[in-house]
Amino acid sequence: MSRWEPNARGRLEQAALELYVERGFEQTTVAEIAERAGLTKRTFFRHYADKRDVLFDGASALQALVVDGIADAPAGIAAISAVAAGIGTATATTFEDRHGEAGKRQAVIDATPELQERELVKLATLATAVARTLRGRGVDARTADLAAEAGIAAFKVAFGRWLAGPPDGKMAEAVRETFEDLGHVASGREPEESGA
Amino acid sequence: MSRWEPNARGRLEQAALELYVERGFEQTTVAEIAERAGLTKRTFFRHYADKRDVLFDGASALQALVVDGIADAPAGIAAISAVAAGIGTATATTFEDRHGEAGKRQAVIDATPELQERELVKLATLATAVARTLRGRGVDARTADLAAEAGIAAFKVAFGRWLAGPPDGKMAEAVRETFEDLGHVASGREPEESGA
Repeated sequence: MSRWEPNARGRLEQAALELYVERGFEQTTVAEIAERAGLTKRTFFRHYADKRDVLFDGASALQALVVDGIADAPAGIAAISAVAAGIGTATATTFEDRHGEAGKRQAVIDATPELQERELVKLATLATAVARTLRGRGVDARTADLAAEAGIAAFKVAFGRWLAGPPDGKMAEAVRETFEDLGHVASGREPEESGA
Repeated sequence: MSRWEPNARGRLEQAALELYVERGFEQTTVAEIAERAGLTKRTFFRHYADKRDVLFDGASALQALVVDGIADAPAGIAAISAVAAGIGTATATTFEDRHGEAGKRQAVIDATPELQERELVKLATLATAVARTLRGRGVDARTADLAAEAGIAAFKVAFGRWLAGPPDGKMAEAVRETFEDLGHVASGREPEESGA
């Protein structure tokens, strides 16, 4: 096998997701992932630290995109609008045409408590980074913390809505719609017919 | 030592919190906690499964109170108002006169990644229970999920505000105020001077 392995990362990720879905995360070994991808264990470890890393490798890139999007949002817009803009831009880039992979990844996480914990830590870390970025825009700390936590709550819900929707659905659209709904729901203005 | 140990639970909890703050969670043993409380290891294990359980023992009781509070909220009020009512009532009961213990507990959790993960899982489990309870009130699933996640976000922020405030501050008041702020922040109506 040559050292030049076209799209080794993508092949390893796809093989890992398939195996995690088929056999379960805990039952899958790195050797099996490499074999399924037609690559070596050594190549695996050139790209990923361990088999969990395949699932969380994109977290820091996503966070950087969200933070940049918030920092670059127009001056003077509301904190929650800056968060919505950052998450919308970042997720449009990250999840574009990746509905299938995202669904498999979520199924694996939902089936594995250890991975659920890691996912929650990832979102909490993202909320902290969002709050810090808002304060950097001059938003007061109390508003920044609340907009960050509420924004990450909306992100979670938007992601679930996007996954539950059609394979060609746009994540950016789900984000836009969910943040709009958040404004209504959080101020108690949801349609009356949905109340008890 | 007699089998009747007045307030063994409270003494064990206080001893554990003191030791976790002084020495760190990982460095503290159950034997040391029991000794500090003037009780035996056997008594410790009659009350708690392990040393982590001392910190999370109240989670299911809190969740039951929140769920009951939401289920019993007046018919026809907005989903987020039912969540605010449930969290307000539950936390008033749970945290009344416990500002000191709550602060120590939070310091221990903040210093220990394993405990942070457990705390995040606790909050995620609470959000799921809240969403289910809202659907039981006839709230549509999309609104229920969003009100639950946004409500838990507000709970986290309210708890932080209460801890940062004076020892005699009321948690129920922090909850009321934070949910009110959430309505403003989530719909982009925070004071203009806080924007960039």
